[in-house]
Amino acid sequence: MAFGHRIQMIPLPKGFTVAGVRCGLKNKRNDLGLIVSDRPALSAGVFTTNHVRASCVDYSRRVVSKGHVRAIVVNSGNANCCTGVQGERDTARMAELVGKELSVDPELIAVGSTGIIGHLLDMAKVERGVREAAQKLGVDAHAFMDAILTTDLVEKWAWVQPDNLEVVSPHSLTPRTPDTDHNGLMIGFVKGSGMIAPNMATMLGYVITDLDVEGLDVQAILKRVADNSFNCMTVDSDTSTNDMLIVLANGGSGVKADEAAFEQALGLVCTSLAKQVARDGEGATKLVEIRVTGTENPKKIARSIGDSPLVKTAMFGCDPNWGRILMAAGKCGVPFQPSDVKLSIIAADEEHLLFEEGAPASFDPKRVSSALKSDHVVIDLRLGDGETATIYTCDFGYGYVRINAEYHT
Amino acid sequence: MAFGHRIQMIPLPKGFTVAGVRCGLKNKRNDLGLIVSDRPALSAGVFTTNHVRASCVDYSRRVVSKGHVRAIVVNSGNANCCTGVQGERDTARMAELVGKELSVDPELIAVGSTGIIGHLLDMAKVERGVREAAQKLGVDAHAFMDAILTTDLVEKWAWVQPDNLEVVSPHSLTPRTPDTDHNGLMIGFVKGSGMIAPNMATMLGYVITDLDVEGLDVQAILKRVADNSFNCMTVDSDTSTNDMLIVLANGGSGVKADEAAFEQALGLVCTSLAKQVARDGEGATKLVEIRVTGTENPKKIARSIGDSPLVKTAMFGCDPNWGRILMAAGKCGVPFQPSDVKLSIIAADEEHLLFEEGAPASFDPKRVSSALKSDHVVIDLRLGDGETATIYTCDFGYGYVRINAEYHT
Repeated sequence: MAFGHRIQMIPLPKGFTVAGVRCGLKNKRNDLGLIVSDRPALSAGVFTTNHVRASCVDYSRRVVSKGHVRAIVVNSGNANCCTGVQGERDTARMAELVGKELSVDPELIAVGSTGIIGHLLDMAKVERGVREAAQKLGVDAHAFMDAILTTDLVEKWAWVQPDNLEVVSPHSLTPRTPDTDHNGLMIGFVKGSGMIAPNMATMLGYVITDLDVEGLDVQAILKRVADNSFNCMTVDSDTSTNDMLIVLANGGSGVKADEAAFEQALGLVCTSLAKQVARDGEGATKLVEIRVTGTENPKKIARSIGDSPLVKTAMFGCDPNWGRILMAAGKCGVPFQPSDVKLSIIAADEEHLLFEEGAPASFDPKRVSSALKSDHVVIDLRLGDGETATIYTCDFGYGYVRINAEYHT
Repeated sequence: MAFGHRIQMIPLPKGFTVAGVRCGLKNKRNDLGLIVSDRPALSAGVFTTNHVRASCVDYSRRVVSKGHVRAIVVNSGNANCCTGVQGERDTARMAELVGKELSVDPELIAVGSTGIIGHLLDMAKVERGVREAAQKLGVDAHAFMDAILTTDLVEKWAWVQPDNLEVVSPHSLTPRTPDTDHNGLMIGFVKGSGMIAPNMATMLGYVITDLDVEGLDVQAILKRVADNSFNCMTVDSDTSTNDMLIVLANGGSGVKADEAAFEQALGLVCTSLAKQVARDGEGATKLVEIRVTGTENPKKIARSIGDSPLVKTAMFGCDPNWGRILMAAGKCGVPFQPSDVKLSIIAADEEHLLFEEGAPASFDPKRVSSALKSDHVVIDLRLGDGETATIYTCDFGYGYVRINAEYHT
């Protein structure tokens, strides 16, 4: 099933080409990818906050923050993390190799890595891979996606156009093809499904667009969008050493973006990608969307529920366990009155009230359990008037333990 | 195997009697327990910080904070939580029933409950149970322990004497019997093994002693001790609605305790109990002790490692996965230099260096993996000079998912 459903063509923004090749860093799958813009693209990025991080994170942060990027090179199979000074040299060397092939200043090239940590990259393989990828640059975004995935079971991408904000993704029921003569296009690619070691399944996200963003503070926009999309997603509460999310905008469409429209488009793409990552969490059987309304900090409560192994195992077991949800809400230090609580589950197009006014509601546990077999479940917790915060996560079953405890067998 | 190894007599401090009976709140096991002191015992307690909590927590906090307690009544099988005003009345009624049987002011009686939440207690059963327990008061601490356990697989208790600070517990290799004519005794009982729902496996801890603590600030001592024992333990990062830890000191031995000796004894008992809870975590196969030295906040780092599902599944899989440990250390926001890291695993009486000076050490993965099959593993992470913090946790395997996802089947 994995990677089998290539029914949709993935469009690229004007002026961008991509490639994905297999250079031997891992078995049987592509492991080196390139994204190239035919002109310097305005760049913005957000990076892991982990104090243990790979050299590519610091390298790419520096490159991206200078304002313009021509290419991104990514390898999977080896995270080049905890590899000391030689690891730093190898990151810089990856950029140099790409620069040489493309005749581009290496200072305009970002680098991403994901995979096993504590091992030096086999630079001979990387060099061959870069050469081959540069020759194969074209429109095959599936080949690029293959090159950046690790434990992911499915491709994850999403695109929108400013004139049609309905997001197209692998989950779209009615996929469409953009006009070749389109008025701007934005597409994002992401990998990540939790963490697995000795591979650490980093979250790598790349969003490219041909919109002209001259004059916009794309970095500030990206920060806001990331806070409401990727930073609202939790698979196992762990944070990788190599996480990065980079946006490139090259203006190739000639269409000028205004700030609000650009932020809206980026938000739609990133939210779709974050949901796809949560749904593809290691061992997950469903996307669990947690909406909390009211209190001084609904996001903290939503995250506490989303990180709770007890809530996640209950979702795996299809049990409408309101007690665990309230426990997880109550433990994070944000005050609320249990008598103000209204808790519902929305699944399979039905809303089921579980708890209200300090006491459990009368619901049919078998019927709610049956609804919870859906692959998309919403936990809706109302604690008073105020803002609603949403966290995307997944359930937690035997598959997670299998992937994360038995990866050697 | 559970509850089968009653090879050790559990001693009681002078002036205390206990009982445990089966009143029908749960199947086939004792479900109502009593601890009674023949005189008012000086009391101290710490309670759950969850904003969703049972009425017995607020009730017992009030009773304990008045300074003296004569008895504690505990039921399992029903947590009497999220049960509104009737639940509050039932908590008070439990104290009244015990008071009537013992001819004691109900205001001197603490109440604990653990089990399913959202259901009213069957007070007719409780009433029968209290009557029977009052008649059976004696020295059978195993019967009391049975009455407070839920998903626990084993009894958990620990005792010391001021003249002999070697803790005796169910894990003692050379158990001993205290002199009947002893110079003071302190024993603690605890239940808890993670959380399970609709039962929520609350942590209930009761420490009783016949030492005379007149003039000591036992509440302050207990707070310090709890911070270094139970608050250093994590099974699944979730916090119950019903957690409580109560200390009663009735002076029955006539032995005056000095503050330092009392704090030391209480610390030894509570640390032993906390380790027993971690070792008996749901689905756990081993106790994992995480020691972190250096940085401005070693405890925060130790807790981040102890709460990481990835570290815990690696321990279950017996994998010396230093990458996950460093990732978990790095993600919690406490700064350190990866080049300062020294990481070892201590298990089966061997120390194995995994990572040093920014790079993985050369170790034999098979040999370390074999050592990790031990039922007690220490992760020793040194990040510089400074204090050492210790967190007690367990591994995380299929058993946890089974217990927490399939409890209905």
